[in-house]
Amino acid sequence: MSQVERVGVSLEKDLLATFDALIAKRGYPSRSEAIRDLIRRQISDERLSDPKATAVAAVFLVYNHHSTKLMSMLTGLQHSHLLQTISSMHIHLDEHDCLEVIVLRGQVSEINKTAENLISLKGVKLGRINLLATEVA
Amino acid sequence: MSQVERVGVSLEKDLLATFDALIAKRGYPSRSEAIRDLIRRQISDERLSDPKATAVAAVFLVYNHHSTKLMSMLTGLQHSHLLQTISSMHIHLDEHDCLEVIVLRGQVSEINKTAENLISLKGVKLGRINLLATEVA
Amino acid sequence: MSQVERVGVSLEKDLLATFDALIAKRGYPSRSEAIRDLIRRQISDERLSDPKATAVAAVFLVYNHHSTKLMSMLTGLQHSHLLQTISSMHIHLDEHDCLEVIVLRGQVSEINKTAENLISLKGVKLGRINLLATEVA
Amino acid sequence: MSQVERVGVSLEKDLLATFDALIAKRGYPSRSEAIRDLIRRQISDERLSDPKATAVAAVFLVYNHHSTKLMSMLTGLQHSHLLQTISSMHIHLDEHDCLEVIVLRGQVSEINKTAENLISLKGVKLGRINLLATEVA
Repeated sequence: MSQVERVGVSLEKDLLATFDALIAKRGYPSRSEAIRDLIRRQISDERLSDPKATAVAAVFLVYNHHSTKLMSMLTGLQHSHLLQTISSMHIHLDEHDCLEVIVLRGQVSEINKTAENLISLKGVKLGRINLLATEVA
Repeated sequence: MSQVERVGVSLEKDLLATFDALIAKRGYPSRSEAIRDLIRRQISDERLSDPKATAVAAVFLVYNHHSTKLMSMLTGLQHSHLLQTISSMHIHLDEHDCLEVIVLRGQVSEINKTAENLISLKGVKLGRINLLATEVA
Repeated sequence: MSQVERVGVSLEKDLLATFDALIAKRGYPSRSEAIRDLIRRQISDERLSDPKATAVAAVFLVYNHHSTKLMSMLTGLQHSHLLQTISSMHIHLDEHDCLEVIVLRGQVSEINKTAENLISLKGVKLGRINLLATEVA
Repeated sequence: MSQVERVGVSLEKDLLATFDALIAKRGYPSRSEAIRDLIRRQISDERLSDPKATAVAAVFLVYNHHSTKLMSMLTGLQHSHLLQTISSMHIHLDEHDCLEVIVLRGQVSEINKTAENLISLKGVKLGRINLLATEVA
C-alpha cells in the first residue's frame, strides 16, 4: 500500500447521515474505507470500458458433464498465446451439472471473445464473466 | 439543499492521483462533487433493491406505430390506481418506428410488473426501464 | 415489418414448460413474440458495445432547479454538431428537484462522453443513461 | 437432459439474418442452442430476482494479503449455518495482491449480505458477486 493522504470532502448533512447508516449496515470499519471502495470501483469500471486494457477475469460456466467439446476447448485454452489461464476450479453441482471457474489474464476484448465462444458451446447451460481491471491502486 | 459538513477521508496517494485524473476527464468541478455522486448512486441502488420502495421510473419503448394494443394500454395506464403517470413523450424515429418515454411514480415492484407487461406487447421491439430513487438527499 | 419466416427450434421439455410459465406471467401473446424480444435485445446489446455505432439514447437527470450551469449546458447541447437532440422533457418532482429527460441521437462514444459531462455538473444529483441501438429490425 | 420438443417460431427475415450473423460470430453450432441460451438466461435472471431463491454464487475478491481480518472471516464462513461454502480458490496476482474466488450455496438474500460484508473489509480492494441460479432445466 502506498503512502496515505488526508483530503477534506464537503457533504450535505442529510446525505452523510444516510451514507453512515448504509455503511454501518454493510459492516464498513470507517467512511474512508467505504469511499475508497466506491472510488476503486469507478476507476476499475472506467478501465474495463477500454477493449485494449489488461484485465483479470473469472469465467463461470454451468454445464452438462457429458459436454466433451467444452473439455477439449478448455484444454486448448491452456495453450493459448493470447490469454493466460491462471487457474481453474471444477465443482460438481448435482448428478447432471458441473460448475467450472476459470481465471484468465489478458486483453479485455480477447477475454470477452473467448468467454462468448465458451458460453456458446452445446452443453454449456449458463455462463457469466467477471472482469477486474488490474493495477487498481 | 441541507447544511454542509466537512469530513476527512484517507486515501492512498496513487489512488488519489488516478481518481483526480478520472474526475478531470469527466469534468467534475471538485473531488467533493465526484464523491457525492458516488455516494448518492450507492444509496439510490440500495433503495431500489427494495421492491416496496417508492420510485420515479422512466420506461423507454421502441415500437411499431401500428401497435394499437400498446396505445390502449398506455391510455389505461393513465387511469391506473397503482401507478401515477407523471408525463410521457412521443418521438418518431423513422417511417416505421416510434419511441415512447413514460415517466411513472409508484412502488418498485408495481413499476417493474407494468414495464414487463408493456415490453411483452406485440409491436414493441425494444424496451428498457430506468429506476430513479426518490428522496435521495 | 419485413416478411416473416418460420423456423424450428429444439427445446428440452422442462425448459419449455418453465419458459411458458414465465412468458404467461409477463403477458406475452405467444412464444414467438417472447423469443423475438430476446433476440432483439441480444442484437441491440451487441451493437451498443461498439463505441462507433449510432444509437438513440435517453439521458435522465435529477437535479436541483437552481443549477444554472446545467441549464446553459443543455442549451449548448441543442447546437452541438456531434449530437442531435431529438426532444426533451422537464418534470417537477418536488419543491427542490426536477427530472430532465433528453433524447439524443449520435455515436455511442459521443453520447457517453456528453452524458458523463452532464452527470458531473454541480447540482445534478443522479444521472442515468439508456442506449438503444437504432435499426434493430 | 430431458426429452426434446420441437417448436415453431415466426421471425422477420431481417431479424433472422442479423441473428444468424451474430450467432455465427459467437460460434454457436445451431439456432436452437443460441435460443436455448437466451431462454435459460432469462429464466435464471427471473429466479435470482427472488431474495428467497436458493442459488449458487461465486464471490470474487482482490485483497492485500496482509488483511488478517479477511482470513478469519473466510474461515468463519466455512462454519456458517446459513451458507455452504462449496469450494474456494486462491491466486497470487502480484507481490501485494491476491484474488480469492469463493463458491457458495444458499439463499440469495443471505449470499448478498455475506458478500457485502466481505467486500466492506479493510484490505479488500475490489469485490464482485456472481449469482448463478440453481435448478435451471
